[in-house]
Amino acid sequence: MSDSKNPEMQNIWQQDKDHYIHPWTDFSTFHETGSMVLAGSDNAHVIDFEGRTYLDGIGGLWCVNIGYAREEMAEAIADQVRKIPYYSCFGHHTTIPAAKLAAKLAELAPGNLNHVFYGCGGSVANDTAVRLIHFYFNQLGKRSKKKIISRIDGYHGSTYMSMSITGVQADHIGFDIHEELVHHISCPNPYRRPEGQTLEDFCDEKVKELEDKIIELGPDNVAAFFAEPIMGAGGVIVPPPGYHKRTLEICRKYDVKYVSDEVVTAFGRLGHMFASEKEFEIVPDVITCAKGLTSGYLPLGATILSDDIYEVISKPQAEGAIFTHGFTYSGHPVSCAAGLKNIEIMEREDLCGRVQDLGAYFEEQLKSLCDLPIVGDVRGRKYMMCIENVADKKTKALLDGKARVGNRIAEHCQRRGLIVRPLGHMNVLSPPLTLSKEHIDFLVATLRESIEATTEDLKNDGYL
Amino acid sequence: MSDSKNPEMQNIWQQDKDHYIHPWTDFSTFHETGSMVLAGSDNAHVIDFEGRTYLDGIGGLWCVNIGYAREEMAEAIADQVRKIPYYSCFGHHTTIPAAKLAAKLAELAPGNLNHVFYGCGGSVANDTAVRLIHFYFNQLGKRSKKKIISRIDGYHGSTYMSMSITGVQADHIGFDIHEELVHHISCPNPYRRPEGQTLEDFCDEKVKELEDKIIELGPDNVAAFFAEPIMGAGGVIVPPPGYHKRTLEICRKYDVKYVSDEVVTAFGRLGHMFASEKEFEIVPDVITCAKGLTSGYLPLGATILSDDIYEVISKPQAEGAIFTHGFTYSGHPVSCAAGLKNIEIMEREDLCGRVQDLGAYFEEQLKSLCDLPIVGDVRGRKYMMCIENVADKKTKALLDGKARVGNRIAEHCQRRGLIVRPLGHMNVLSPPLTLSKEHIDFLVATLRESIEATTEDLKNDGYL
Repeated sequence: MSDSKNPEMQNIWQQDKDHYIHPWTDFSTFHETGSMVLAGSDNAHVIDFEGRTYLDGIGGLWCVNIGYAREEMAEAIADQVRKIPYYSCFGHHTTIPAAKLAAKLAELAPGNLNHVFYGCGGSVANDTAVRLIHFYFNQLGKRSKKKIISRIDGYHGSTYMSMSITGVQADHIGFDIHEELVHHISCPNPYRRPEGQTLEDFCDEKVKELEDKIIELGPDNVAAFFAEPIMGAGGVIVPPPGYHKRTLEICRKYDVKYVSDEVVTAFGRLGHMFASEKEFEIVPDVITCAKGLTSGYLPLGATILSDDIYEVISKPQAEGAIFTHGFTYSGHPVSCAAGLKNIEIMEREDLCGRVQDLGAYFEEQLKSLCDLPIVGDVRGRKYMMCIENVADKKTKALLDGKARVGNRIAEHCQRRGLIVRPLGHMNVLSPPLTLSKEHIDFLVATLRESIEATTEDLKNDGYL
Repeated sequence: MSDSKNPEMQNIWQQDKDHYIHPWTDFSTFHETGSMVLAGSDNAHVIDFEGRTYLDGIGGLWCVNIGYAREEMAEAIADQVRKIPYYSCFGHHTTIPAAKLAAKLAELAPGNLNHVFYGCGGSVANDTAVRLIHFYFNQLGKRSKKKIISRIDGYHGSTYMSMSITGVQADHIGFDIHEELVHHISCPNPYRRPEGQTLEDFCDEKVKELEDKIIELGPDNVAAFFAEPIMGAGGVIVPPPGYHKRTLEICRKYDVKYVSDEVVTAFGRLGHMFASEKEFEIVPDVITCAKGLTSGYLPLGATILSDDIYEVISKPQAEGAIFTHGFTYSGHPVSCAAGLKNIEIMEREDLCGRVQDLGAYFEEQLKSLCDLPIVGDVRGRKYMMCIENVADKKTKALLDGKARVGNRIAEHCQRRGLIVRPLGHMNVLSPPLTLSKEHIDFLVATLRESIEATTEDLKNDGYL
């Protein structure tokens, strides 16, 4: 039962529990507890049905970069609905926001990534990247180049294909993936490298692993390498210095297309519109993005392709044949209008500059939690951070999964007016980029209190 | 070059051509002609950048059921943006529109289809259906039940998996699909049945083909059958009477899940909120929908599952395991608010009743075009119609593909202020459900003129 005395709330809660299949749900508890109903929002806060306010430490889900409930977003969206709320961009039709946003993304994306294919989210952006890279190699007559390499703990989405690319092992339990097509190499997680190994040696090993895998599969059989600049749902893994540049070089050597999955990292989270070049000095062949593209206000994703790829795929594959890929909502005019307004706000308020500045403070303050006995690692950059909780800081041993340490900390935070994301034994933070210094101080202090309270609980329950 | 004298228009047109990769584009002409820019709309009309108005005979793309530019849609959407423009529904969080719409869809869907999984379109709704049905059989320990059967000319989307299910052969040219997993049986197209065969015999043959395919693959290996009640992008194919009921019985016999792809047929196009039961007397195991769900105003799709399937998939697959499927934009609050308002409008204005009435008139008037020498077949129901053009009405032989008859007719219509969709040698119609009788009369008269003009052109060019 919901704990609400409000009958409307009771009804919503019941409807949700009876009819709504939530993503990533723990059904062992959902059938009893149901959902927390969020009804309102304001800048960095969300408000539940009872009027309780929470600082949103996760920006919805790595999403709400410009902050919640912006009046000018509401107006831009409504204006487009009033003009033309939808038109198909199949064949030779377009709408003004779809065309303008494509040009804007081409301007913002690095190097010669000048061509935009739209979908409605990151999963489809990556699914499309696979289909278009296969098509590209087919067009070139390299019909054996099909296989995809990605990393353990990489997260690339939840369509059949994008979940196949995803390397988070727990996400595959009970579900099917395309095992023949996708091959996973190990995660470049510096925190979990062998004791005594230098970062340089660790990086050498991980880069060599990619090259070995390409050689093992046969370069003529490998189409693409998928990598997030910083792994997100896999636990905010920042690879060792030079990793991306060197893996890109390996890809170029074997004509393997490098897909940089910037679904989380783009649009300011690391202080740049795109992180591939500005943070990691690479110009990939493809960038996929979503989330921050509209700050989550409306569904939109994009697969941004290089001139080279576009030139090949935009030739008819046979006489009379058309390019047979795409979605009803590709280039949705209202979603694209939201994307344009979102980027306009980011540029006008220099949110990237703000992240460079306050994001550095956020990172530094969070790292102060390292003195707590169960905090093994605080990692990430700017507004993409993770706290890894452990049973033993020296051995880095984890707590028993039944201790649900990430959930316990999240629950303690929630009682104190802060939302953080539990991810197994970790907690992830990806707040709106509009946080003030006061918000940051509250967030870090609340996390400290909650981790301390959780530590006590774990001791009382015999887990520590 | 664009033919516009307006420099802003020239710029938009150029941006579109340089940076926007359109779905289903004919690149043999796109690089020169670029796109028609649509800038405005009103009820059943769209307006181009130069102010030219067109009756939209295709509702965007089987989408804009309630008509364009509804003020109350703009307001409902903006209101939700002002409240809370996004929140993740991962884990135990929800928003009011997502919960309410799930309950509403459960109420509208037939039988025990009471559980809603959200995505952002039809492709993902079908992709999700495959993943969840695999998961369902895995949960039951029936781990060999994986294969999918669908029909030639069935259209189910454009993710890697949903395009694999799609049976439109031309859509596979140059692209890859999951050939081992998906098997296609033939299209139940009465117009193309062998001469002299009765509809009953034709139906028997098609039903038997499904059963034979299940037996050939092994019932223990077959997971699902995907079928649109009326095939859409495959050319508006209405199967012979009894086909759906009998294929469903075959599926039940072999424990094969029946997925009714109602992406086009739901939300009024055939005069019902869902067509499976009300038009074709079947209660499938899964219904997928999108498009009319929001009338295309915002991206939204849904996979609606039976109680039986939900009960199995909502048990944790292992201790501590969560249900690891879903998307950032699953249950997007603004898209769900648009869905709720769309359904409210449909119910308040009794659009289904209107379609029963004026849709029948539309169907009847279109069928009057059968007297034209190149019109081989006019088929479909209510606001889902297709004209099949032929070179010879008796032999049903097609014109040379190079004649581009569908495109020629569409171009003649466009010059006369009407948009119809060319689909190879066919033209497809799926107008807003708000058409007036005068709109219908204009549409049919304009089509007649355009087909006549095209016939003359084809004669002049030596195709007839």
